[in-house]
This record gives sequence, structure tokens and C-alpha cells, in this order.
Amino acid sequence: MQKIRSAPLALALSAMSLSTPAMAAPPDVAGLQEKAMADEIAWDFVSDLTTEVGPRPAGTADEARGRDWAVARLKALGFANVRAEPYIMPTWVRGAETAKVVAPFPQTLIVTALGNSGATPANGLEAEVVYFPTIADLEAAAPDRLKGKIAFVSHAMKATQDGSSYGYFGIVRRQGPSIAAKKGAAAILIRSIGTDNHRTPHTGVQMWAEGVTPIPAAALSVPDAENLERMLRKAQMKGGKPVRVALTLTPRFIGDQASGNVIAEVPGTDPAAGIIVAACHLDSWDLGTGAIDDGAGCAIASAAARLVMKNERPRRTIRLLLAGSEEVGGFGARAYFAAHKEERHVLALESDFGADRVWRVDFKFPAAGAPLAARIADALAPLGIGKGSQPAGGGADIAPLVAAGVPVIDLQQDGTRYFDLHHTADDTLDKIDPAQLRQNVAAWATVLALAANADEQLR
Amino acid sequence: MQKIRSAPLALALSAMSLSTPAMAAPPDVAGLQEKAMADEIAWDFVSDLTTEVGPRPAGTADEARGRDWAVARLKALGFANVRAEPYIMPTWVRGAETAKVVAPFPQTLIVTALGNSGATPANGLEAEVVYFPTIADLEAAAPDRLKGKIAFVSHAMKATQDGSSYGYFGIVRRQGPSIAAKKGAAAILIRSIGTDNHRTPHTGVQMWAEGVTPIPAAALSVPDAENLERMLRKAQMKGGKPVRVALTLTPRFIGDQASGNVIAEVPGTDPAAGIIVAACHLDSWDLGTGAIDDGAGCAIASAAARLVMKNERPRRTIRLLLAGSEEVGGFGARAYFAAHKEERHVLALESDFGADRVWRVDFKFPAAGAPLAARIADALAPLGIGKGSQPAGGGADIAPLVAAGVPVIDLQQDGTRYFDLHHTADDTLDKIDPAQLRQNVAAWATVLALAANADEQLR
Repeated sequence: MQKIRSAPLALALSAMSLSTPAMAAPPDVAGLQEKAMADEIAWDFVSDLTTEVGPRPAGTADEARGRDWAVARLKALGFANVRAEPYIMPTWVRGAETAKVVAPFPQTLIVTALGNSGATPANGLEAEVVYFPTIADLEAAAPDRLKGKIAFVSHAMKATQDGSSYGYFGIVRRQGPSIAAKKGAAAILIRSIGTDNHRTPHTGVQMWAEGVTPIPAAALSVPDAENLERMLRKAQMKGGKPVRVALTLTPRFIGDQASGNVIAEVPGTDPAAGIIVAACHLDSWDLGTGAIDDGAGCAIASAAARLVMKNERPRRTIRLLLAGSEEVGGFGARAYFAAHKEERHVLALESDFGADRVWRVDFKFPAAGAPLAARIADALAPLGIGKGSQPAGGGADIAPLVAAGVPVIDLQQDGTRYFDLHHTADDTLDKIDPAQLRQNVAAWATVLALAANADEQLR
Repeated sequence: MQKIRSAPLALALSAMSLSTPAMAAPPDVAGLQEKAMADEIAWDFVSDLTTEVGPRPAGTADEARGRDWAVARLKALGFANVRAEPYIMPTWVRGAETAKVVAPFPQTLIVTALGNSGATPANGLEAEVVYFPTIADLEAAAPDRLKGKIAFVSHAMKATQDGSSYGYFGIVRRQGPSIAAKKGAAAILIRSIGTDNHRTPHTGVQMWAEGVTPIPAAALSVPDAENLERMLRKAQMKGGKPVRVALTLTPRFIGDQASGNVIAEVPGTDPAAGIIVAACHLDSWDLGTGAIDDGAGCAIASAAARLVMKNERPRRTIRLLLAGSEEVGGFGARAYFAAHKEERHVLALESDFGADRVWRVDFKFPAAGAPLAARIADALAPLGIGKGSQPAGGGADIAPLVAAGVPVIDLQQDGTRYFDLHHTADDTLDKIDPAQLRQNVAAWATVLALAANADEQLR
């Protein structure tokens, strides 16, 4: 199907290039896609990274091993200018984490601390649980309801293909702890911001609002949150007995530690044509092995850039940015921007939403880029990817570039099962479908080849 | 469909009873099934048991809370002769459990101790891992390969509807530890006997062979086992570096503890007609809340017996046996048999394979029971249940009765996803499909009503 469809297109482009000799030769997109669909580089990348390194929490020696591994792998793949770019960042590490309903229904609960959580005393704390069905209920609560108690917010997020509900439901994790702390809560438990029903709670970062004293903040697995909800209803039915929970969380800050980005390049033939940044992040949460978040993204971007490089040297430089410290607040993205903002960035892309198939492409281009956007959309269609109708937004690893006006393309991945796994112990290699991973490589190679060789001025 | 189909059958049976006045009135099976399909008793039973009690490991105070809960619930449901029947059993309890690959690829592994596992020193042990793809490879290994090392057996079980592969693949768990111990291994790790890919390892009992000194024995979650396999292959490729694992397991035996069965009855009108035992087990593993294993089984048997009781008092006594200590070796089943073996048991059934739909019915009946088996098979057909071609075998809770020659019926449940959850932290209420649970109640009510009122001599 692909070959039959692309043959006339290739002829047409070939005819064009004959009549306009100044243009770069059009890349052989169909050939690239065919190679991508047989690509093993991306699978080997994420398999070896998760096997030989495993979890890579920001600021730790494990993240540093990840950088060393990536530098060696990217050199072996033939990229130029491969190096780590170090920086320093404040580092938080997980400690012990246990929870148990003490009364009226004694039972263990499975919890995990949220990033930057405060700690309980070493032997834990015990307090009554106050239930809030939604974040709005927590916000509306009178402070005397929460003083010295454990807030429990149990918003339930449902799966969506575009992952859009993470913005709204994620507020419970991102802001719930500060809201509860301001109202004098002893601690906060949230239902995991996840769509699975496994006993693998979802961690994730939260930032304390200005002036707030950190409190212990943890996520219950979804089955545990549902069980606690039932206990609260039962206790209510039995005359309003308080539900008391014993919680131990002993995370701590270990001060400023070394982190870093890893850079690798496919140097362009025309230094004046600018740089395309192909980004992902190399750090991961500590609970899983960082396969879908975001070993896969680094595997996709690296494999795609290599395919373009092996095909023909592109006009523009393609720069891989394997960012550090994304999970804890985008320190790597900011360090990259601080070091490189004077360079001529003409386009940025990021892969950080798992390894399921790309289903939609979005653009944020200046008017001059419209013909390129159209060519890219046409070339992606054989991969089952449709052009969207909203502007691309990028992600955390390229956010400072996007904020500075760099054009961006989003290759939107299917997120239907992403939040089953995101930030849990279950983020492991077996969750990646090799066929869908290869479709991602094909989409990325298509975009990189077309954009790196396009004549359009993007900025 | 059900009503249309069953009307002529009911008429035929009604005509029979007119011509043979000594026979019991035929039970209204269609009416029972209709009531069962709207039954909330089973759901409330398993929901409340897992919420108000939670895990119920054999020999512990939590199992005792489960007995108290069950006695109260069964009395509230209107059963007669409800009581706990206590006994004493040797009790093993889980301790700390951690594992980490130390070299060449440092990474945490998620493990859980197998029942009756030995303990490591409090600060753990560290040893090289020796890999065996199958139990046969472990059995064939020369002892010098294992001396002081950690055996790792990684058989992979696949899902089957009838659960039959658990027999063969389960040998790794049941016998692997003794085989490894005999060969001088320092410890054994097995791939979980499970069909999921979550980081929730599967525990389960194993018994030490005569004369064997216990060693630490644990299951890795399936993703961890696969990761360890990849590490071993990678280490082999890199010149045969040993893979070393640090393992800490601190379970212990806490001596003889109180356990017990819970009994409840629907007394029959004819004491000479014998007793039908409807069995399940009330204990569970400690990792989950014992929802599918086996809160659901007790919920199904109880709800079905109650429907029969509410309909009309049956000729034979139906006795619910909610056994204790099934998971650790069937202490409850043996205690029941020792106490009750002189009574006239005419039939035994057991529900202990989750809560998914019954798809097949098997019988082990004397020749005189054939007409009853045919009536039962006909009455189950509208529920989508087919008659099997092999003899029923029963399960652990009725094994001593079956061994003594008591006839048995197996209402075979669909086990396709049972071993995704079995013996893991993921055995929680949310895994139960209420519609399939009700189909179980309908099947059980059908069998209990027909068997309790049948004129056939079963023994």
C-alpha cells in the first residue's frame, strides 16, 4: 500500500527538483518508513536501558549511570558531538512508605509518596481521615475540618486517547498537598492519578506553594482508594465512627546533586539552516524502570534520527536532547535553554507519552511553514496519522524553546493506556508493543527528514 | 429465553409429581435463576468481607476477625446452626522482603516470599544467580553448580480457561525450593506462577520435603523475572560476568495458632436424606484482600444456599463450610473431616476459582445419580453452562470428603484471568464482575435446589 501510494508522489517531487535545481533533493520518505517498520534500534535502546540501568531518578547515581549509558549508546550509533551537559539540582529521595487503617477496619493500604513530599516522624503518625470526593471539595473545606487530620481526595480520572484529562485531574496531585497543608492537615492521601485498577500507586511531582510548610503527601493505589472510600461509607453507616490511618513516609531532600542532559547530533550540511531539537527525557521515576516514561521517547527520537542520518546527510542539524530531571520539574529543559538559547533553533519536537502509535499530528508553524506542514501531513497519512485542528504545544523538555517562539510539531501518541502505567512500578519494558514503537520511529523519521531538508523558513 | 424454555419442563415435572405423590415437589429452577440474576447478597458479602476485614492469613488474628465476621453475616442471612469450629495449626508469617541486583546491572527487583520460606539473615544474603529455564533443568543440575548460589527458575505459565496448566507449572513453586535446597542452594527465586505482567508477585504455599533444611524462597513478579533473564543474557554476552543478587527475606514461624472453620446450615426436612456440603475457604493470602480467592466463593455458596432456603425448605440439609487455612495446606478441610466424617454426606461442591462465569459442569456420581446429573445439566444450560465429559474432582476444601467417596459436582469457573490475580496484592474487589458473580449464584442455586430435593440415592 505504501509503496504503491508513494510512487507517484516520489515522481512528482523528483520532477519538481529537476525544475528547481537549488532545492535539496526530496528525501525518500517511503523508503525511510519501510526501514523504520523493520527497525530494531529503538527496541534495543529501550530494552537495554531498562535492563542495564533500570530506574533513573533525577539527581541520583542511577540517573548518572543512565547518562553514561546514553552517551556510549549514541556514540555507538554513529552520532556526532555526543556529550553530557551537567548541571546541579536540589534532590528529593523516597524513604519508607507504609499505611494502615487502624480503626474501625484494620487493613494495610498501599501508598507511595508524591515527589517533594514531607516526612512523617520515623515511627509514623496516626490521624482521622477526612474525605473529599473532589479537589473542589477540598478547596471549599473550612480549615477546622482538617486541622491535625489526614485529607483524602478521591477524584477518579478516566482514560482518554489524547490524555487531556490529566490536566484537570492532575490538579489533585499538583496542588492538593499545598491546599491541605494551608488548612492545617497533618497529611494528605490522594487516589492515584491513574486509570488502572492495580495495586501499583502512581507517584508524581508536586511543588509546595510559597510559604507552605511541607506535609506528608502520598498516593493510594486505585483499589486502595476505593477500599478506603467503602470503609468511610461503612463507618458512616455504623454511627459515624472515625476512620483512623497510621502513615509512615520518610522521604528526604539530600541537597544539590549532579544531574545533566545528554546531547547528540546529526550535523547538517548548511550550518545557517538552523537546528531541529528532537527531545525526550532520560530520567524516570524510581518505582518502575522508566520504559514508557520515557525510555521509549529517547529510543524513538534516537532511532528516527539515525535512520535519517544513514539515509543522507540532512541540510539542517538534528540535535537529540535527552533531558535530565524532567519528572521533578524540568531542570534539564531549563539548563539546555540557558546554555543554547542563542543558537538558531528552527523546530522542536518531543516524545514523552509512551510508545503506543502516533494517531495525530499538530503543528505550530509560522505562515511560511504551511507547505511543509502539508507535505508532512501527506507523508504521515500512510502511517494512519491524521492532521489535527489545534496548535501543537510541545512538552516539558522543550517548553522553554516553545515559550521563546520556536516552531513545534506534536506527534500525538495514543494515550488510552498511558495512565494505567505512568509513574508506577508497572512502567516496564513488557508494556511496550514493538510494532507500535516502530510506527513511532517511522513517523519521527518522516518528520525529521522532511523538516531537516525543507526549504521553508520556519523562523 | 429462560422462562419460555423452562415452562414445558416445569409442566412435565409437575405432571410427574401428580402421578408419584411420594416425590418432593420439583423446585422452581427458573424462578430461582431469575432471583439469582438480581441477587445482591453475594456482592455485598464479598464487598463487606474485603472492606471490613481485608486479608485473612491462616492462623492470624485477621483470619479470626474473618470468622467472627462470617458468623455474624451468616446469622443475619437467616442460616441455622451457625458457628465457628476451632482448631490449632502451625503458623508462618511474612517478614521484610527486598531484592536487588548488585552487579553487573544494579537494580531493584520486586519479590515476595513463598509460604513456609526460610529466612535470610536480618541484613540479607548476597550470591550469584544460576539460571534454569525450566524445573526439569533445575532437577538435572549437578549440585556443584548451585552450592551457595541463588537458583532462578523461570518457567512461564500461559492462561487457560480450565486452569489446568497450574498443575504442571505450579511444580516450580511447590517443589522447586526443596530441589534447590537439596542441591545446596543458598536461596531460590522463581518467576511468579502467574499470567499477568504486573509488578505484583504471586505468593503461594510450598512444603519442604522430608529432611530438607528450609532456604529462603521467593517469587519475582513476571516483569522482574523477564528483566533478570535479560540481565543474565546481557552478562553472558559481556564475557560471562556473574549476576549477583542481594536478597532479604525475614518470614518466621510463630508456632501453633488458633484457626477454624465456619459452618452454617439450611436444615433439611428429612434428616435421613443426608447432607450436601457447599464449600469455599475464608482464609486468604496476606498480599491482597482475598476477593477472588476466595471471598467470592464463600459469597456465591452463601447467596445460593440462602436463595434455596428462602424458596422452600429442602429435603436434604445444605451445609455451608467456610474453611480456614486452605492456602497453607488444607488444615480446615482435614479438621472438618475429622469432626464430621461419621455424618451422612451425600454430595460436596466447592467454589474456589474466582468469580468469573461457570462454563462447564462435571459430575462424579454413582450410577443411580445419572438422572439427577441429567436434570442438573439441562437446568444449567440456559445459563450457558455445558456438561463436561470428565469426572468432577472437587478442590482442597472438600478433598477429604471426596477421597472418602462422597459424590461431587464441579461448577467450573472461567479461569482465563484467574492467574493474573491469584495470590497477589491485586486480588481485590474491583476484579470481580458483578454480572458474572450473579451467574455463579444462579448456577449454584440451581444445583443446590435440584440436589437437595432429588429422590436419587447418591451414596
